[in-house]
Amino acid sequence: MIKVAVLGAKGKMGSQTCQAVEAAEDCELVAALDQGDELTRLTEAGAQVVVDFTRPEVVMGNLAWCIEHGIHAVVGTTGFDEERLATLRTQLEASPGTGVLIAANFSIGAVLMMQFAAQAARYYESVEIIELHHPDKVDAPSGTARRTAELIAEARREAGAGSIPDATSTGLDGARGADVDGIRVHGVRLRGLVAHQEVLFGDTGETLTIRHDSMHRESFMAGVLLGVRRIVDTPGLTVGLEHFLDLS
Amino acid sequence: MIKVAVLGAKGKMGSQTCQAVEAAEDCELVAALDQGDELTRLTEAGAQVVVDFTRPEVVMGNLAWCIEHGIHAVVGTTGFDEERLATLRTQLEASPGTGVLIAANFSIGAVLMMQFAAQAARYYESVEIIELHHPDKVDAPSGTARRTAELIAEARREAGAGSIPDATSTGLDGARGADVDGIRVHGVRLRGLVAHQEVLFGDTGETLTIRHDSMHRESFMAGVLLGVRRIVDTPGLTVGLEHFLDLS
Amino acid sequence: MIKVAVLGAKGKMGSQTCQAVEAAEDCELVAALDQGDELTRLTEAGAQVVVDFTRPEVVMGNLAWCIEHGIHAVVGTTGFDEERLATLRTQLEASPGTGVLIAANFSIGAVLMMQFAAQAARYYESVEIIELHHPDKVDAPSGTARRTAELIAEARREAGAGSIPDATSTGLDGARGADVDGIRVHGVRLRGLVAHQEVLFGDTGETLTIRHDSMHRESFMAGVLLGVRRIVDTPGLTVGLEHFLDLS
Amino acid sequence: MIKVAVLGAKGKMGSQTCQAVEAAEDCELVAALDQGDELTRLTEAGAQVVVDFTRPEVVMGNLAWCIEHGIHAVVGTTGFDEERLATLRTQLEASPGTGVLIAANFSIGAVLMMQFAAQAARYYESVEIIELHHPDKVDAPSGTARRTAELIAEARREAGAGSIPDATSTGLDGARGADVDGIRVHGVRLRGLVAHQEVLFGDTGETLTIRHDSMHRESFMAGVLLGVRRIVDTPGLTVGLEHFLDLS
Repeated sequence: MIKVAVLGAKGKMGSQTCQAVEAAEDCELVAALDQGDELTRLTEAGAQVVVDFTRPEVVMGNLAWCIEHGIHAVVGTTGFDEERLATLRTQLEASPGTGVLIAANFSIGAVLMMQFAAQAARYYESVEIIELHHPDKVDAPSGTARRTAELIAEARREAGAGSIPDATSTGLDGARGADVDGIRVHGVRLRGLVAHQEVLFGDTGETLTIRHDSMHRESFMAGVLLGVRRIVDTPGLTVGLEHFLDLS
Repeated sequence: MIKVAVLGAKGKMGSQTCQAVEAAEDCELVAALDQGDELTRLTEAGAQVVVDFTRPEVVMGNLAWCIEHGIHAVVGTTGFDEERLATLRTQLEASPGTGVLIAANFSIGAVLMMQFAAQAARYYESVEIIELHHPDKVDAPSGTARRTAELIAEARREAGAGSIPDATSTGLDGARGADVDGIRVHGVRLRGLVAHQEVLFGDTGETLTIRHDSMHRESFMAGVLLGVRRIVDTPGLTVGLEHFLDLS
Repeated sequence: MIKVAVLGAKGKMGSQTCQAVEAAEDCELVAALDQGDELTRLTEAGAQVVVDFTRPEVVMGNLAWCIEHGIHAVVGTTGFDEERLATLRTQLEASPGTGVLIAANFSIGAVLMMQFAAQAARYYESVEIIELHHPDKVDAPSGTARRTAELIAEARREAGAGSIPDATSTGLDGARGADVDGIRVHGVRLRGLVAHQEVLFGDTGETLTIRHDSMHRESFMAGVLLGVRRIVDTPGLTVGLEHFLDLS
Repeated sequence: MIKVAVLGAKGKMGSQTCQAVEAAEDCELVAALDQGDELTRLTEAGAQVVVDFTRPEVVMGNLAWCIEHGIHAVVGTTGFDEERLATLRTQLEASPGTGVLIAANFSIGAVLMMQFAAQAARYYESVEIIELHHPDKVDAPSGTARRTAELIAEARREAGAGSIPDATSTGLDGARGADVDGIRVHGVRLRGLVAHQEVLFGDTGETLTIRHDSMHRESFMAGVLLGVRRIVDTPGLTVGLEHFLDLS
């Protein structure tokens, strides 16, 4: 039984996490804190792992306290840059045995899609990304699409791949999508959709398509629980859920 | 047995048409003309229908001659504007019983896709188009995608549909595709593809997708033969293969 | 303002309908009845249209009463056979001006998919259906898939289409799906899915795919409201929502 | 420059290989042998690598000769069982430095699809396979689909995954596809298709789809050339092109 506490327990992701922890056979929800609650309740409850879905302004304070008290952390809060990660690494050095996972995306499917896309990238002359979301989304392309494009571009550079063929010489603005690190990315917005992405690879006579469809926030919980189960045996800082997937 | 002649018989579409006519059980290829051949060979051979895949500079002369001699025509040559169509109508009035089909697209599948898209348009809040082609294509979006967008936009206007929802306020140029008559169109270019298009409709809790994949020029022949078989009983000018499809 | 009453208002579809009627600008919910409530409340409330999502055992009684009192009905309750439909026709003859719509499927998208499939059927040598649902579904293939197959088979027969090519001579049981009226139907069951269907048409060098994805019961409400708005002007019996779609 | 010879050079795959080798900048075609030609021509031409697309009856003789003369081999000929592989291993022990690649599938895309499917298998409750081919194919399901199912089943067993959920209790024979090692496999046959496969994974609220579309035999050549380039540095026996893909 892993004793788990949730920070930001009243938020959308936090409350979903509370439910998921309670439903998991190998986990026990020992504390559910939100704004105004004292962190000392974590130690009182004997929490081994904290799941943090709070806000950029408070997450560093939360983590400093947890690391100091030897509590592992699985963090979905956004806003981590190199400076923050460096700070965490220093704090973790002083608390050997404690682990922190910082993950921008807890969807195992999205992480698999990105990993597979990076693996396939070197084998195809062409690649493009189509992301499809509900029409209330304010940014285009999506963060996942941008990150996927960057991973693909990096893999192509490492493999010495040339530029992607494109003879377009006439047309309408925007028809060929956005350019993210040399990769074309198209954002579709459609009522009825939630969050979806397709990565299309093509070469002479064949194409390979990797598609992820995410319909519910609930789908992130498998990733959160994977993080909880693995962080207890993974001291130090881990950035990205992909490090906890076995892709051999 | 319909006696068919082909003009532009040495071109890609023309030679394919010759083969298709010869293979059809109810058609007979009686003449295959190309640049420099005399049109009188059409009457000598007793041609009932001419299939014209020539060039904009010569097609009007070909058609004037055919209409005058009471030979029906199925025309895939491009470059028809309202003025040319008016000229043909006048010529056809003087030759009652003769029929001419002008078609920009002989792919029955593409025509069905466009018709279905126009029919579905009024029932969905959201709609976008993704066209996908080989990377040697010079224009984006494709002519078929533009035409589909126009048909959808027209159907939405007729139905009094409001504007399509889109909360995008931040992002990269081009991420949301090109705007064709208020419809977002995305052009993908990928080695290994030929000519493909997806029309995506979405409303609360559901989506409808119509996709056409065209792999070979051979796929246009069913449409050419449909035109040949129907034009013999359809006097006057017909613009668009959709008029020969039974969509009741 | 159309005055609408709901029968079976506490059921899943009924309660959804109550919400949809209340949200619609041109409709007013005047009564929400369930088991044990008196039908006289319908006339007291001045209901013009009743939406019936009850049970096969009670629906015929409900409809007899409504027709007698000149209240139109939109019916999603199941269990209608030819005998029941004949009974309704007789009752409606005695109440000219009253309309009843019996619909097995209120998903406009599903109805469009079926109509488009029937229209495309005559133009393609090959056709197969893939339906995909959540793994808790007890029947395979789905009712919608069966109905789609029947419509396609009928359209092919009318067009004099030959049998669908299939050289399969060796393999595993079930690999080629179920046979519904000569059409191959495949049922996929996958956690994370709701209700989806793809109809694939193929001929030399091209394929046409029509796909419908249904994610929420909410998506049926557009069809229910369409039924309500149209039934007030459509006296007599109408079987199938497709008759209220404009597909010209 | 790698000096390459082709055995079975007049066959479909062999002649395609000759063209691909000639087109490759780092390879030179030094011999193209077919039935009746002497293997001594291989040494005369200085062949470093042989590509064998012959027949099961002759391939073991070809390989024995090549291994004896220190010529590496890339083999697409079918019919290898454990006994034959054991024979090759023994022969290769006597010729250290010589490498032989036996590959059932030279499509890099198909191999990637299978590898990704095996990697994803442990993370999803549900999985099914849909393979889609032209209607002249005699077996169903395809060999690639069977192999994919076996790899997925193996990965699930290793991960201790339970059985796949399926509540189907009523329906038509074949509706749920064929059972390959506990994995449901559906075979679609459609005019206009070539060789395609989709692997669908599903879990609460999300799905992951990996699709490979193969349109031309030409698409196998990238895999053949990869084999040629890697086998010169890979002594001993390698079974399966996946060992030459970098999937880290």
